[in-house]
Amino acid sequence: MAIKVGVLGAHGRVGQAIVEGVSAEDDLELVAEIDRGDDLQQLVDAHAEVIVDFTQPDSVMGNLEFCIAHGIHCVVGTTGFDKERLAQVEEWTKQDGAGNVLIAPNFAISAVLTMVLAKQAAKFFETAEVIEFHHPTKLDAPSGTAIHTAEGIAAARKEAGLGEMPDATEKQLDGARGANVDGIPVHAVRTRGMVAHEEVIFGAQGQSLTIRQDSYDRASFTPGVLVGVRQIADHPGLVVGLDKYLVL
Amino acid sequence: MAIKVGVLGAHGRVGQAIVEGVSAEDDLELVAEIDRGDDLQQLVDAHAEVIVDFTQPDSVMGNLEFCIAHGIHCVVGTTGFDKERLAQVEEWTKQDGAGNVLIAPNFAISAVLTMVLAKQAAKFFETAEVIEFHHPTKLDAPSGTAIHTAEGIAAARKEAGLGEMPDATEKQLDGARGANVDGIPVHAVRTRGMVAHEEVIFGAQGQSLTIRQDSYDRASFTPGVLVGVRQIADHPGLVVGLDKYLVL
Amino acid sequence: MAIKVGVLGAHGRVGQAIVEGVSAEDDLELVAEIDRGDDLQQLVDAHAEVIVDFTQPDSVMGNLEFCIAHGIHCVVGTTGFDKERLAQVEEWTKQDGAGNVLIAPNFAISAVLTMVLAKQAAKFFETAEVIEFHHPTKLDAPSGTAIHTAEGIAAARKEAGLGEMPDATEKQLDGARGANVDGIPVHAVRTRGMVAHEEVIFGAQGQSLTIRQDSYDRASFTPGVLVGVRQIADHPGLVVGLDKYLVL
Amino acid sequence: MAIKVGVLGAHGRVGQAIVEGVSAEDDLELVAEIDRGDDLQQLVDAHAEVIVDFTQPDSVMGNLEFCIAHGIHCVVGTTGFDKERLAQVEEWTKQDGAGNVLIAPNFAISAVLTMVLAKQAAKFFETAEVIEFHHPTKLDAPSGTAIHTAEGIAAARKEAGLGEMPDATEKQLDGARGANVDGIPVHAVRTRGMVAHEEVIFGAQGQSLTIRQDSYDRASFTPGVLVGVRQIADHPGLVVGLDKYLVL
Repeated sequence: MAIKVGVLGAHGRVGQAIVEGVSAEDDLELVAEIDRGDDLQQLVDAHAEVIVDFTQPDSVMGNLEFCIAHGIHCVVGTTGFDKERLAQVEEWTKQDGAGNVLIAPNFAISAVLTMVLAKQAAKFFETAEVIEFHHPTKLDAPSGTAIHTAEGIAAARKEAGLGEMPDATEKQLDGARGANVDGIPVHAVRTRGMVAHEEVIFGAQGQSLTIRQDSYDRASFTPGVLVGVRQIADHPGLVVGLDKYLVL
Repeated sequence: MAIKVGVLGAHGRVGQAIVEGVSAEDDLELVAEIDRGDDLQQLVDAHAEVIVDFTQPDSVMGNLEFCIAHGIHCVVGTTGFDKERLAQVEEWTKQDGAGNVLIAPNFAISAVLTMVLAKQAAKFFETAEVIEFHHPTKLDAPSGTAIHTAEGIAAARKEAGLGEMPDATEKQLDGARGANVDGIPVHAVRTRGMVAHEEVIFGAQGQSLTIRQDSYDRASFTPGVLVGVRQIADHPGLVVGLDKYLVL
Repeated sequence: MAIKVGVLGAHGRVGQAIVEGVSAEDDLELVAEIDRGDDLQQLVDAHAEVIVDFTQPDSVMGNLEFCIAHGIHCVVGTTGFDKERLAQVEEWTKQDGAGNVLIAPNFAISAVLTMVLAKQAAKFFETAEVIEFHHPTKLDAPSGTAIHTAEGIAAARKEAGLGEMPDATEKQLDGARGANVDGIPVHAVRTRGMVAHEEVIFGAQGQSLTIRQDSYDRASFTPGVLVGVRQIADHPGLVVGLDKYLVL
Repeated sequence: MAIKVGVLGAHGRVGQAIVEGVSAEDDLELVAEIDRGDDLQQLVDAHAEVIVDFTQPDSVMGNLEFCIAHGIHCVVGTTGFDKERLAQVEEWTKQDGAGNVLIAPNFAISAVLTMVLAKQAAKFFETAEVIEFHHPTKLDAPSGTAIHTAEGIAAARKEAGLGEMPDATEKQLDGARGANVDGIPVHAVRTRGMVAHEEVIFGAQGQSLTIRQDSYDRASFTPGVLVGVRQIADHPGLVVGLDKYLVL
């Protein structure tokens, strides 16, 4: 039996991509395309089991309140969630018969998996460094994703009881060894033509392990959204971050 | 408190490397170096908690029987274990106060982790291929490790309900799409100068994830042996394969 | 002084990209945008020094005859040139005061340079292999570019007196060692999400050299066209293939 | 006819590797193995056409004076050449019937070729960055080779009239964008297990080109020495740097 899916914000650029993505899958059935001004009751009438919400901060809370109360699970890529909003959503999910909610800032599954796998590998290697590659019009360096990855690695190392990494550098040109994020060197490369890419390099005696992620296209969120749609029934309450769905 | 470690086969090439590896770690203490002809009682006298055995098929069973019976855990890289031997070792570990045993054919932690992480990632991607790189004096293609990796990916895909991979190839030169291992293409590159390297490439809409392992040196088993030594107290009975120690 | 450039086929998708590309450069001046039905005389009136022609096989010969006769150099990406057409164009370039012509089937400068540099490196290494990566909707394997690259490497090896490459493989799964193109193994990987990528791996004792090209976007012809525009005045007569412009 | 080769410093570690390397080649014939105290006249008696000198600063000048005067070409990896010594050697090569000389600080052919090819590619790309990877016991960052590579790229860009590279970075963690070597960002990664590796990344609209060099083994000088031995007869006088032999 295919999972019945409704898409909110269905006429936006992202919404359209998700409508196409859902329609292409055999185990999913697109039952409603909703956009601003449409009646949410359509979702109930169409027996939607899961909705995907890529709308706006001013409409998402209303959407969630309605869907959760009707037992419809919600996969949410809309931005603007602060502590209060998250607390409110969590409250709603505690009602009897409430739908589950996944709110994720990043649905690029290769990027999220890189963080998940890197945290797992980190505890087995003596050294770890992160290199990220973006187009030269990017304003910040390193990228938020790379900083987040390095923080995850640093935390995993600490938990595993690993100490400071070896580095005999005595003489260096300023900046050569990268930015220091919780003890993990992070290097930012800016190359015309590239989109968004990240590489994590782990080293141990006689060997290295590299985990690399390449985004070739800004529309790389669909596979991660589909993972959310398929698994949300098994993740009760509110979950923040797609990574929770990707760990074994 | 440092873990007290004894090394069997301590005068061999591998044994020497392990002796050095153990000696270099603060949380491990080398308490005995045993080689052919030495009395195993030394291990008991030195209060060894874990032994590492890289000896020969003709001596390893005697070593294990003695150590297990004395409650000493055994990390074993010696070859020659068939079904009967494994059954016998398992039997020994069931005695009261018995030591635990890890028997692994491959201690190269980056190679073993590549398999572990690849199995985990496999279920989230539409396509997967494996490329392995070795020196041109290698006799078999693809390598056993690459075949094993591909089998693990195929099994993970099946478990996740993923079907056949897309491939529109209509016209090809013989061999261009690699060897087919359970539906996963595997390519073998033979390059002078290289040692042993493996790359797993996963693809999904707009993105890819690559896990790559490089062995620069045949003596890359030490870090994996140390993982075994540190964790064996938490893995009761007989465990075959280092991968069981690397999964979360 | 900026080079005065006219674009033919200026309203097509490729033409538009070139119009934008020319306009963005300080040392180039866009002086005419011509499309089907427009009078070529505009090019002369605007003092165009170089034209770029991405039009159709049915119009390109007329365009070239006119421009060459008026001493305007022609950078041509239009397809459909057979031996007779090339001979005719060459004939035209021999007139007094004729414009120069560059006809190239591939303006992706990273792909063309990969071939140029690979040919140069080939003669210094014992082994060479090619891996190409494309999306899984590609019909042929390996790609034409990869085959062309392998042929170039094979020719360079032969010229340098290098013999057959070492390969001790005795036991293999069918296809593991790739397709054989003039003695060079070529492997084709099909990964969802990728666009067009190629890797050439050279090996010698204790070391390897890798040249890799990534196309992230089908519209990657512009930089190569600009190289043609800037250099064409220095390449008299007819030149076929951008590679002739990229060698030192 | 095989080229007759003598090795000076033949009993040293490097000398031994070169003796083996020469012996393994069909087109070369090892005719003399000389070490400290041996009579150089042996070289003449054995009709050596080329010698390879990996000796010491205190003996190399005597060796060169003798060989050059006897019309024997000299491939030299010995260190300690300053301006005066180079001038003296050049003087010697100007005699009638003098041998040619190649003095090179680096015979790792993949590293030297990376510099040569990078300089060639540099003029066709909008951006260029260098990443080098070494073991964590290295004292300087970036490596001398990486700095030298970046300087070569910067010079090639300048010669081609390319301006400053685009970089919109407004907000950065200190060091994220690497060290600045003549305007080229250079990043130094320190990974346990790695030996010496360098990557040059060029970017243009919609594409990138990467040239990567891996040294897996400190004994990677042999292939470069053999290039020197084979080509030295065609390079009259004194040449400093193997790169002069690698350009088309």
